[in-house]
Amino acid sequence: MAKFQSGKCDRLVNAMHITASVFINEDESGLHGDYDRWLEKLAPHEPVSQYRHNDTGEDNTDAHMKRQIMGREVVVAITEGQQDFGPWEQIFYGEFDGRRRKRVLIKIIGE
Amino acid sequence: MAKFQSGKCDRLVNAMHITASVFINEDESGLHGDYDRWLEKLAPHEPVSQYRHNDTGEDNTDAHMKRQIMGREVVVAITEGQQDFGPWEQIFYGEFDGRRRKRVLIKIIGE
Amino acid sequence: MAKFQSGKCDRLVNAMHITASVFINEDESGLHGDYDRWLEKLAPHEPVSQYRHNDTGEDNTDAHMKRQIMGREVVVAITEGQQDFGPWEQIFYGEFDGRRRKRVLIKIIGE
Repeated sequence: MAKFQSGKCDRLVNAMHITASVFINEDESGLHGDYDRWLEKLAPHEPVSQYRHNDTGEDNTDAHMKRQIMGREVVVAITEGQQDFGPWEQIFYGEFDGRRRKRVLIKIIGE
Repeated sequence: MAKFQSGKCDRLVNAMHITASVFINEDESGLHGDYDRWLEKLAPHEPVSQYRHNDTGEDNTDAHMKRQIMGREVVVAITEGQQDFGPWEQIFYGEFDGRRRKRVLIKIIGE
Repeated sequence: MAKFQSGKCDRLVNAMHITASVFINEDESGLHGDYDRWLEKLAPHEPVSQYRHNDTGEDNTDAHMKRQIMGREVVVAITEGQQDFGPWEQIFYGEFDGRRRKRVLIKIIGE
């Protein structure tokens, strides 16, 4: 999971991949491992034959589920150049498949 | 699940029903069936007596859960009349109850 | 869970705490109890030793999971001073940890 820093103005940050998430939570490695293990319980990768989407030649259907739990996007309020964040909030990109080069879109909303 | 096309300007798309979702993922029927089966495991419809909300005369409490997992809304960036989407991203409306005529709100953000 | 009323203009409402959610659903106490029990099944608090994040001295890792399912934020469309809401939609703050004084950010988007 990668961390983002940003600047000024309200902002939309979203994954451009349907097996990945942009989410806001805490920067603590134990927590990120906990997320991985928890998501694997809620949407197991194996057996890949349990998912009809995998019949198309994919084996990443579980990653489509994990992304829905963690979310596609965040909208972040910015005031005078500062993110209006609580003390522990940070923006993360979560990758649940991992086979492609990934892109994230960061879009200013308003002026 | 129904698919949406849209035009120009940043855009909020949300369900107006609390047992439905607007979400972004892939247009593949096997995946959508996988979502249905997976959501049924995480929030089973039966037995309806397991949910106190159903004591009010409803039997759709599971649909309120499914909607939270899949999300109420998406915010979509638009640049020069094009959605800033990854190659597989499409907007869907997911209905988890199905007893009412449904409405979706599409709202332009900014100009 | 606390309920929010709001006024005019498109609006971002988000939790500022990573173990809490702002979400939109129905104002019915049975449903809110159902959410609590359902989230406890998907992300159990006990045993606290199952989560590596709890090794940092916390015991609230499950609350980080529950918040991801319920979501951090909502974006609400406003037209002529009225929220563009379906008949049952209301905004709630969901607290899954409960040890701190909580803050919610409400931000106008656009003018």
